[in-house]
Amino acid sequence: MGMEENLLSKITTPADLRKLKPDQLMQVCSELRQFIIDAVSHNPGHLGSSLGVVELTVALHYVFNTPYDKIIWDVGHQAYGHKILTGRRSNFSTNRKYKGISGFPKISESEYDAFGTGHSSTSISAALGMAQAVRNKGENRHVVVVIGDGAMTAGEAFEGLNNAGASKADILVILNDNNIAIDPNVGALKEYLLDITTSKTYNKFKDRIWNMLGKIGRYGPKTRTLAAQLEAGFKSTILDKSNLFEGMNFRYFGPIDGHEVLHLAEVLEDLKRIPGPKLLHCLTVKGKGFKQAEEHQTAFHAPGKFDKETGEIIQSATDNLPVTYQEVFGRTILELARLNDKITGITPAMPTGCSLCFMMKEMPERTFDVGIAEQHAVTFSAGLATQGMIPYCNIYSTFLQRSYDQIIHDVALQNLRVVFCVDRAGLVGADGATHHGFFDMAFMRSIPNMVVSAPMDEVELRNLLYTAQLEKNNFPFSIRYPKGRGMSNDWERPFKEIEIGKARQISDGDQLAVLTIGQPGNFAASVIKKLAKENMSIAHYDMRFIAPLDKDVLHSVFKKFDHIITVEDGILKGGFGSSVIEFMCDNQYNNSEVTRLGIPDYFVEQGTQQELYRECGYDAEGIEKAIREILLRKEDKRQK
Amino acid sequence: MGMEENLLSKITTPADLRKLKPDQLMQVCSELRQFIIDAVSHNPGHLGSSLGVVELTVALHYVFNTPYDKIIWDVGHQAYGHKILTGRRSNFSTNRKYKGISGFPKISESEYDAFGTGHSSTSISAALGMAQAVRNKGENRHVVVVIGDGAMTAGEAFEGLNNAGASKADILVILNDNNIAIDPNVGALKEYLLDITTSKTYNKFKDRIWNMLGKIGRYGPKTRTLAAQLEAGFKSTILDKSNLFEGMNFRYFGPIDGHEVLHLAEVLEDLKRIPGPKLLHCLTVKGKGFKQAEEHQTAFHAPGKFDKETGEIIQSATDNLPVTYQEVFGRTILELARLNDKITGITPAMPTGCSLCFMMKEMPERTFDVGIAEQHAVTFSAGLATQGMIPYCNIYSTFLQRSYDQIIHDVALQNLRVVFCVDRAGLVGADGATHHGFFDMAFMRSIPNMVVSAPMDEVELRNLLYTAQLEKNNFPFSIRYPKGRGMSNDWERPFKEIEIGKARQISDGDQLAVLTIGQPGNFAASVIKKLAKENMSIAHYDMRFIAPLDKDVLHSVFKKFDHIITVEDGILKGGFGSSVIEFMCDNQYNNSEVTRLGIPDYFVEQGTQQELYRECGYDAEGIEKAIREILLRKEDKRQK
Repeated sequence: MGMEENLLSKITTPADLRKLKPDQLMQVCSELRQFIIDAVSHNPGHLGSSLGVVELTVALHYVFNTPYDKIIWDVGHQAYGHKILTGRRSNFSTNRKYKGISGFPKISESEYDAFGTGHSSTSISAALGMAQAVRNKGENRHVVVVIGDGAMTAGEAFEGLNNAGASKADILVILNDNNIAIDPNVGALKEYLLDITTSKTYNKFKDRIWNMLGKIGRYGPKTRTLAAQLEAGFKSTILDKSNLFEGMNFRYFGPIDGHEVLHLAEVLEDLKRIPGPKLLHCLTVKGKGFKQAEEHQTAFHAPGKFDKETGEIIQSATDNLPVTYQEVFGRTILELARLNDKITGITPAMPTGCSLCFMMKEMPERTFDVGIAEQHAVTFSAGLATQGMIPYCNIYSTFLQRSYDQIIHDVALQNLRVVFCVDRAGLVGADGATHHGFFDMAFMRSIPNMVVSAPMDEVELRNLLYTAQLEKNNFPFSIRYPKGRGMSNDWERPFKEIEIGKARQISDGDQLAVLTIGQPGNFAASVIKKLAKENMSIAHYDMRFIAPLDKDVLHSVFKKFDHIITVEDGILKGGFGSSVIEFMCDNQYNNSEVTRLGIPDYFVEQGTQQELYRECGYDAEGIEKAIREILLRKEDKRQK
Repeated sequence: MGMEENLLSKITTPADLRKLKPDQLMQVCSELRQFIIDAVSHNPGHLGSSLGVVELTVALHYVFNTPYDKIIWDVGHQAYGHKILTGRRSNFSTNRKYKGISGFPKISESEYDAFGTGHSSTSISAALGMAQAVRNKGENRHVVVVIGDGAMTAGEAFEGLNNAGASKADILVILNDNNIAIDPNVGALKEYLLDITTSKTYNKFKDRIWNMLGKIGRYGPKTRTLAAQLEAGFKSTILDKSNLFEGMNFRYFGPIDGHEVLHLAEVLEDLKRIPGPKLLHCLTVKGKGFKQAEEHQTAFHAPGKFDKETGEIIQSATDNLPVTYQEVFGRTILELARLNDKITGITPAMPTGCSLCFMMKEMPERTFDVGIAEQHAVTFSAGLATQGMIPYCNIYSTFLQRSYDQIIHDVALQNLRVVFCVDRAGLVGADGATHHGFFDMAFMRSIPNMVVSAPMDEVELRNLLYTAQLEKNNFPFSIRYPKGRGMSNDWERPFKEIEIGKARQISDGDQLAVLTIGQPGNFAASVIKKLAKENMSIAHYDMRFIAPLDKDVLHSVFKKFDHIITVEDGILKGGFGSSVIEFMCDNQYNNSEVTRLGIPDYFVEQGTQQELYRECGYDAEGIEKAIREILLRKEDKRQK
């Protein structure tokens, strides 16, 4: 047997794929899978979810007339195969890199990306909008959604189902059921899906009933009528209503094996001809076809670099690297929870990512993984707080946007102590525009009653977590911190209370003042140290709190300095610097100039955090540049 | 028969209610219903929903040991009966008034108000938090939720069900099914609930099946085994899974008549003893017991003053009053939609409130009431926009908070033209703290790509609505406007384009400049006119756009004036005034003083809009005071 011809290399667009014979699809799947493993092994990204939908991806583009027909990938990190088949094979090596292609579908990147995703559970709503437009315009496009069982637990997915079901719109929802989000999936829906796909399965039961009905007829002509009556009853009840999705007016098909590409293609072809809202339940295995990824699904969700032969995840030496903020959170909350039995921990589907897993293991009854459900996470925390518990609700900054109303209405308005641990705040790196934590400082500081804080390093994080649970601090409290590593490994120090609304001085000086919030304070500190050697004398305050601001420090700063720089890892419009100039105006300090460094007024794309800080101009270099410019300008003025 | 003793007047707390005999409860209900009708007929409020739950309210407080047991009223506008039975009968005449009691449950108002509500669909999540706290603390409190079928369509309710079902927590959810929110309810869930309560009912079918199974036995001993097998099958499938709520691990009871107070009390007593998550499906009639309210449910949701004998809604003479912003929106979008077939209208459950109903009537296929589902409303609109449609998505400011993430992630990031019509922006009046539109300017202006505008009057609103659909303006666009009446009735003028980001000058002057956004511009204009008679010369700009700001105007203002006042109907922290001082700082205009008027840093309570504008200091009087103070200060400085 000779070398098989490589098929993938000849597929530039799905039109090429559609020229192949059905019996060639398995080979395409195998090549696509290997391509993904190769690529992700040395250029880290989301592995498991993309491997799980290889067959689905191939079948969809084979059967549907993309890009005329629309495929929406919910969450979108499973769309690598889709990207590779739709013109991005050759530059897939730039995936998630600075100026490269995005790790998520993106309208502006390709006409095949029907809808940009990143945050989960938007797909059904978007598809319904498209399907209504298709109907109004009299077109005959198909609209298809691929959504995971994890994403199904978020409220918006339900809102979408409820509306799509009532609309009778022609959409196909493919439920990609692998029973895992990033961490194992939770909730009643998960149990339900498990039920209808295991021994108690709906289908098996259905078969058993049909068999029994068949037998009834044998008992004579009278029973035949009875059997017919029963069957009619079953049809209208079991088939129409016994299924959750049928209850929502979706025609339910499945469950089918999501790794049999030919069968998938046949089923999809059939479903094309069925009008109205339809749901195809596909069972897939996250990490399919790569042994280690199948066995360690959470680790291989986004494994970093790995050996594609052995499956070993390549650990870079971390012995001398500083601790991550995530580990500090995870270890500290457990330590605090041991001391204070009112403390509970809440995460919407990120126990590993945010490190709540440590507490979850030791205190399962006080730790709640609520699934992808940020709105619920916050109101649930508020409910706990009404009964005197102290919930630490850990949500990534970008997902906190989903619970903005609940933060205002259920927590702040009622002045309840929920401790928001806002992880992944600021620029997160390779996940890009959909995942940066741009907005939290701006939107949290506007909310009355809310304490908004950001630690400059891991010891500060530890002490803020400690401070939040002190009896007297019985009000809404938020602590934002970035993705990744802090400043050192020497962080497990005795707890120390931080006074609410008190800044700290990092360095004294008299030429200008730098006010920082959170981790960019470290960039500033290093620059100021460096410039001190050139005899520049720069004061530096780590403000610690965006709300309430330290008015004493601000009064003294505005009295002393005519030039002030603010630095923040968040959007400039309405953010921390903006709060400083509000203070300035309200107190008529109108002889000071304030230069604000932070995230500008556009959606920053992906790259390493360092690359993005530089682009936005608030890395050490950017701060240095701003300082030198101001000092030069001052010098110029003096000389005039 | 003599006068019956009045029972309600002796009930100060539910403990008094619980001293009554069961056969006295009907009388209590009748008195409570009459009390509500009396009170709301002359002090306007939410009528229909409170009348619909009179029996439920009495039964709950009779059976449960409140306030030890916790009752959470979802949305909360149906809680008048609850308030009257729990110590607030005597001051119920202050309901929704300035400094009076709130129209919604409120923790700080009463220990009987277990959780503050106002926005819908939070109750199950809050209850689950309480139930987990109860479990962790080893208490034996009951936690009960009353939620309407309308509120059930919002995603958060589903998130709550999904988590509660999996948790096995002891909570009772009472589904108050009246098939109407404010407008008639929509969605697949509504049809589902209708199905299981009408001829195709689950229960009736169940009965029929049991009957048939009974008959099978008669065909001989063999069929008896078969019948037993079938019954087992039914039990595990029909009973456990055929019901949507059972599918979510809730034990489902009902449907029962929600107006039979004795039966309700018995059922609730039974349910107390059943552990785990339970759902009781109650059928109620909105407006029950008041003929006109039963017949005109939308009109009597919150009817204003009415004649309690005839049921006639008392219309104050409106002939000479200006038009409402809502009517301008509703009439204008219809007019535009006739001219531009790409225009579609979207509302989450408020077709009457926002006046989309006019378009809905004429163009049902281009108008979408998506139910209480703000997240879906926005992503659905984004989906429409990807296909070239121009969706006008009308959401009240306070509810827009629910879709903040979708606005960022699905609309702005993809730079799609969705026209956000942000109704009820600013202080809304009697609905109070939960319903004010405080935050939208602050949170919308931080979002890249988003045009944020606010008309000063109804003609401006009309022209902004027109401008948003012009072909060239193909980007995210938001238009915020207040609840209530504008400035005149002369608004149906020919459409006129407004240049994006262009302010307009209302008056010229040289002593100071007032920059306003939106309707408070009218307060400023009247004051400035008045002060002109005292020879004060004040410039006034209606900025029209918060983003992008009119830089030309701002440059000229900051060059000319050393004192500037900004006025806005929104939170000061991060709002419009904040954007003006950002411009000032960024352009080094550091010789100007800026005084910002707007909503201060606390949650403003209820009152008339006028009372609240005064409290916040940006009514005409507040603006006049600010102007006089600044001019006095300037005078002082000059004399020194």
